Order: sequence, then structure tokens, then C-alpha cells
Amino acid sequence: MAYPTQVIRNVRPMGGTAVDVLVSNGKIDSIAPAGSASGELPTLAEGNGQLLLPALVEGHVHLDKTLWNAPWRPNSAGPTRWDRITNEHAVLRDEVHMPIAERAGPLIEHCIARGSLYIRSHVDAQTLLGRRHIEDMLAMRQRYAHLVDLQFVSFPQGGMLIAPGTTALMEQALEMGVDIVGGIDPAAMDRDPIRALETIFGMAQRFDRPIDIHLHDLADLGRWEIERICDFTQEYGMQGRVVISHAYCLGAFPAADLHPLADRLSGLGITILTCVPMHFTVPPVAMLRSRGVNVAAGSDGIRDAWGPTGNGDMLERAMFLALRYGWSKDEQLADALDVVTHGGAKALGLFDYGLVPGCAANLVLVPAENVAEAVIDRSPRRTVISRGRIVARDGVFLGT
Amino acid sequence: MAYPTQVIRNVRPMGGTAVDVLVSNGKIDSIAPAGSASGELPTLAEGNGQLLLPALVEGHVHLDKTLWNAPWRPNSAGPTRWDRITNEHAVLRDEVHMPIAERAGPLIEHCIARGSLYIRSHVDAQTLLGRRHIEDMLAMRQRYAHLVDLQFVSFPQGGMLIAPGTTALMEQALEMGVDIVGGIDPAAMDRDPIRALETIFGMAQRFDRPIDIHLHDLADLGRWEIERICDFTQEYGMQGRVVISHAYCLGAFPAADLHPLADRLSGLGITILTCVPMHFTVPPVAMLRSRGVNVAAGSDGIRDAWGPTGNGDMLERAMFLALRYGWSKDEQLADALDVVTHGGAKALGLFDYGLVPGCAANLVLVPAENVAEAVIDRSPRRTVISRGRIVARDGVFLGT
Repeated sequence: MAYPTQVIRNVRPMGGTAVDVLVSNGKIDSIAPAGSASGELPTLAEGNGQLLLPALVEGHVHLDKTLWNAPWRPNSAGPTRWDRITNEHAVLRDEVHMPIAERAGPLIEHCIARGSLYIRSHVDAQTLLGRRHIEDMLAMRQRYAHLVDLQFVSFPQGGMLIAPGTTALMEQALEMGVDIVGGIDPAAMDRDPIRALETIFGMAQRFDRPIDIHLHDLADLGRWEIERICDFTQEYGMQGRVVISHAYCLGAFPAADLHPLADRLSGLGITILTCVPMHFTVPPVAMLRSRGVNVAAGSDGIRDAWGPTGNGDMLERAMFLALRYGWSKDEQLADALDVVTHGGAKALGLFDYGLVPGCAANLVLVPAENVAEAVIDRSPRRTVISRGRIVARDGVFLGT
Repeated sequence: MAYPTQVIRNVRPMGGTAVDVLVSNGKIDSIAPAGSASGELPTLAEGNGQLLLPALVEGHVHLDKTLWNAPWRPNSAGPTRWDRITNEHAVLRDEVHMPIAERAGPLIEHCIARGSLYIRSHVDAQTLLGRRHIEDMLAMRQRYAHLVDLQFVSFPQGGMLIAPGTTALMEQALEMGVDIVGGIDPAAMDRDPIRALETIFGMAQRFDRPIDIHLHDLADLGRWEIERICDFTQEYGMQGRVVISHAYCLGAFPAADLHPLADRLSGLGITILTCVPMHFTVPPVAMLRSRGVNVAAGSDGIRDAWGPTGNGDMLERAMFLALRYGWSKDEQLADALDVVTHGGAKALGLFDYGLVPGCAANLVLVPAENVAEAVIDRSPRRTVISRGRIVARDGVFLGT
């Protein structure tokens, strides 16, 4: 259906001069000086000089496992990654009986109210869990399709080569509608990194899908794997379609030592995605960006069996970037915002993203003087516009 | 004046069983099972089963320098600590003309609304700034005396021995009503650590005041200084009255190597205070606490010329502890809360602090199931009770 042209009046894109934004058919139609749009056009939102941002991009989350909206559950995981995986099995299979829809649904609504209208979620492909997570998350995507763009990664949380049946389940997931081929620690988890990468890239090639690999492996091991992912990206012609999530390993080296690798990542269009952990090493984001590497960010798990933290607020995640890297200048805070907006958009392969005519009218109004203050403040009182419709006001989700 | 007995009905201290708390004369009078307090007694607050916490303790902040409530100001400091100090001079002396009262006042009110009713603020003693910060902050204390306990540290931000006139100004500050003797990096800043410590401890002894020293010096240098601070604490009989703020250096060593030093700190009652920086090394809080060392926390600068971050929310600071140390268990989240409550209270030398009869009725009601959720959630919708009076409701300060 066609919508009439409507006006978002008196907003300041990225903190700049006040403008009126004309919206029609869910897209930005044109941008004119504030006050110049005809008073006869219906008002979509009265901005009162608020900051206008493109919708935030949640680049890495595990919606299918969240315990959001469930009663508080003390964390019961052991200390190792494998402990956490087996603990999660027990929790999700045997203990939590609240359906995914009642946990992931409210979390999606919360993310929307915080301004994330593009969300890439990993969805477990584990034989122990069967197709439940996949089916339930595809139903979630259906339910929220008019409000938010959900991308799903087929994610072998319990390992791929080491868990018989997993690659078949991953392929099934892709056939069912999951978008992206996932992977996890080809060396430490799958124990045969080259065969693991052959499997991942082969699957991506057969299904013509992008790739998003969890890489927790540390220091030299992880760095070696990133070099191999570069090799495979080149060999399989997957330039611009590969994301490496976490990449803690890159934090183990002086940034300058990584210039050649950064240049290679940049040339191959590989995104480095960080969830900004505070107790692991983190990739040198500023250096990577200065060499042209795209960097995106995500929340990772939100209140799940792995850990209790996380709230899906990508402005807060931008502030975490500032804290983690000691960024205090306005330009640096703008960089942090760029990671959770344009960096995410590039990682997700969005083509109509931004604040120029023709882009989707997926927008956030924030009560802040400028981008720097928006990041520092993280005011929840945001007005969120999805495809030209207001979906949250003052931080409150308006309903499906 | 005497207040009649009032009741906080149906609250759960630290997430435990629901109780009624009887309050009179600004103190906790008694605690009884929920519903058992006479309906004839006036209701101070209807808790509806909310969590009851003792007031939060802000252990380290620089209220006198905040730019809170001022228009956004891009950070202009250079990269070194000395750059930041000289930049701050220029900003506070020559550029910001908004009085301290209009910046620190609203920030104090914000801290109160977030539940901090005990605040230790450093106040610059710098000859370049004269007595202005000292006088203005003493006036602030006067203005908010009925709402919040403010402790001030005479803080030689620009160095003590290296800046002629500073020790005299610090002594003047103590005479004027500032409570605590400060210090900063006896080695790196003052360049003569033993004479600096003699000056600090000598001043504390003459005025019979506690000590709170900023220690940014890193790794072996900082550790050596902590050992010397232990020596001086012992020699001057200052057990239980010394706080070492920041102590980044302790994060440079395997925690187990520091056991002997931790035992010494514990024996001398020296508090280690951290502001939980995300881009410096941090002291091993769990190990220190396990050896009996008191640990407190603070916000450090809040939106000042040093940096734009900070919001004075000590529940958020507790969450930062969890993030920084990878704490995910309920016991660990309770430890984080303990640092910003009882740990702070011990650092500040409070004697009537806690949730038992006889303690000051300085309390926070939080909409959370338990302590762990309170820390993770950081809900701003807190009800704050100061000496038996409600001073903030749903996170909104009710006025002086």
C-alpha cells in the first residue's frame, strides 16, 4: 500500500542544521531546511530540534537463547567455554519451559524501542536442540517483519565437525530461511581448521550466502585463523561477504604489527565485529578503521545462560566502545556511533541505509545536542521510526 | 526536631523475606515481618515487595570540576596526564564561567536520585585556582547537608611538592572544613616519594585526619609506592584511615604474587578504591577481598575536562565491576554491590551504616527481584530515603 507523504519536522541529522525530513512509502523522500516543508503535509513527528540518527544496527546477538522476560535465573555455568555450552544445553532443553517467543519477542520489542531496526541474530544449529530454535526464530521474524529487519546466522554453537549431524542441520536451516552460514573456532572447537573452513565456505558457495564466524581463539592461534579466513575469502570469491565476530586475538598484538593483516582484511571487505568485552582483549578498532577495515558491534548474549549482562541498547554499546578504548573526543564518540550504525549496515549488507533521500525511513530521534552527547547519555527517551511509521515514543514500544 | 515513627511497608532487604521497616528520628528503629507493623502508624513508603538496599556510597568523585548541567563541551585535552591537568586549568579558570554551584549542585541532586547518600569528593587544592573550589564546595555541603553526607578530600591535582604554595593551601582547606588529606603520585608527580609521603602523613597527623591518595603510577613503581604507603601507615599509626585510590599498578601482576601485599593492606586496614576503568589495568578486586582488603568504588570525574563519561550511578558502577572482572554469578554480583555499599561505607569511616536497627535510615528501594538483578538492571526508578524522608521517587529528585 502507498502512504501519503509525511514530515518529520525540525530534527538535526547527526547533530547538524535543523531540517524537515519528508517521508513517503517508507523511504526518505527529501530533506529540506527546517520550517520549509508545507504545513499542509501531515506531521509524522515533531522533532523539536532533536538529534536524528539512522536506525541503530545490532550486529551480533543470540536472540534464541535469551532469558529476557523470564524470572531471574542465577548463572550456573562452569568456567570454560565448553562448560558454558553444556550448561546451556541443560538450561535450554530441560529447565526453561517458557517458549522462545515469550523471551525473544519482548527482547526484540525492547531492541526496537532502543532504536535497533536491523538485527543480526545467531540461531543455534545444534542436533541436541533439533530444529526448535530455527523454527521458532523464523516465526519471530515473520511476526516482526513489518517492524524490524532480522537476519539469522546458522550457528553451530556446539561445534560443527565435532558434532555429527550439525552440517546437515545447518544446511536445513539455510533451506528453511536462515540467511547466513555461521562457524565457531575452526581450530579450538572443530580441531581441524582447514576442513572446517572448507565446510563453511563450501556451504556458503553452494547456497550463495554470506558468512559470519565466531572466533574466540586467542593470540597467535586466532591470528593464524584470520589469515586463513582471508585465504578462503579470496579463493572462494567471498569478498565483502564475510564477518569475523569477536576476534579477541587481535588485541594481543601491538596494533602496528597488524597493519599488513588489516590491509588484507580491508582489501577483502572482511568485517571485524566486536561485542566490546571488558575482560578479554579486544581488536584495535581505531587502527582497523584507519586502515579501511569495516568494524561493527553487537550485544552478544543478552541475559542468557552464558551470563546475565546485556540489554540490547546499541547506543550503550557505542559508549562501551568509548570506555574500552579510552575515547573521549567528539570525533572518537562519533566513530563509536559510526560502528553501531554505518559499520553495522555494511556488515549486514544493507543497501538502502542512511540519512539521504532514497534510504529506508528507519530513524531514531534522540534528545541530545550532538552525536557525542547521544553516545554518552544513552537517553532511553528515543522516538523510533520504522519504514515511515512511529514504532516507539519516548523509549516505549508502541505495540505490534 | 523529633519525627513520629513511620513505616516502610513490604520491602525485601537485600532481596530476602519481605519486612516492614520502622523508622524514627531518621534511624531504623526496628524491622518486623511484612504486614505486622500497625496500620495506624503513618506510612513512609509502600514498598510493594521492592528490594531494599542501604544507600549507595560514591567513594571517589570530583564534584568541583564537573561540567554537568553545562552545554556539551568537546574534550580538548592532550594525551598525557600532564596535558589533562594543564588543559583543565585553562577550561576551569578561563573558559567555563558557570559557577560550581550550578554544575555540582544538579549533579549532587542527580546522585541523590540514583541513591548515593554518602559521597566522598576530591576538591582541588591548586594555587592556580586559589580557594574558589574549596569555598564553593563547602557552600554546596552546607546547602545539601540535610540530604546527603559529603566528605571532601584536599586534593593537590597539580602536584604537591612541585607546586609551591600547595601544601599551605591544603592545610588552609583542612582548616576551612575539608575533611581528608589527599595526595597524588608521590613518585611520578611529586618526584620525591618519601618526602611527599612524609608531607601527607605529617599533615594528617597534625590535623588528625584520614588520608586518600590518588595513585596512578603503574606496575612496579606503583607497587613500590603502595609498600611505602603501608610503611607510613604503620609508622604514623594510621591503621584503618588510609585509602589508596585507583592503584592501577596492582593489575600488572598475577594476583597470587600480590598475596603478601594484600595481607599487609588488610592488616593495616588500607582501602583500595577503584573507579573501574575499562582501558587501564585494574586491581584484582576478588583476590583483595578474599584476603580481607576493603575495596570501595567511585565514579571519578563525571563529564569534566578530563573526559565526557560518568553519570554518578553507583549501581551502574557495580555493573561495571561485573563487566570488568567477568563476574556473572549471583554471589559475584552481590560482591559488586557490596563494594558500592559496605565497602564504600568502610572506606568513608561511616559508623551507622547498614540495614539493622540503629543505622541511619538512608535507604534505596529498587524494583528488582534480587541484588543480582538490581546490579544488572540499573533501573533508574529508585525511591530514595534520606534520614527517614523520601528525597527521590521513581528516580526523580524531589527538591531541596
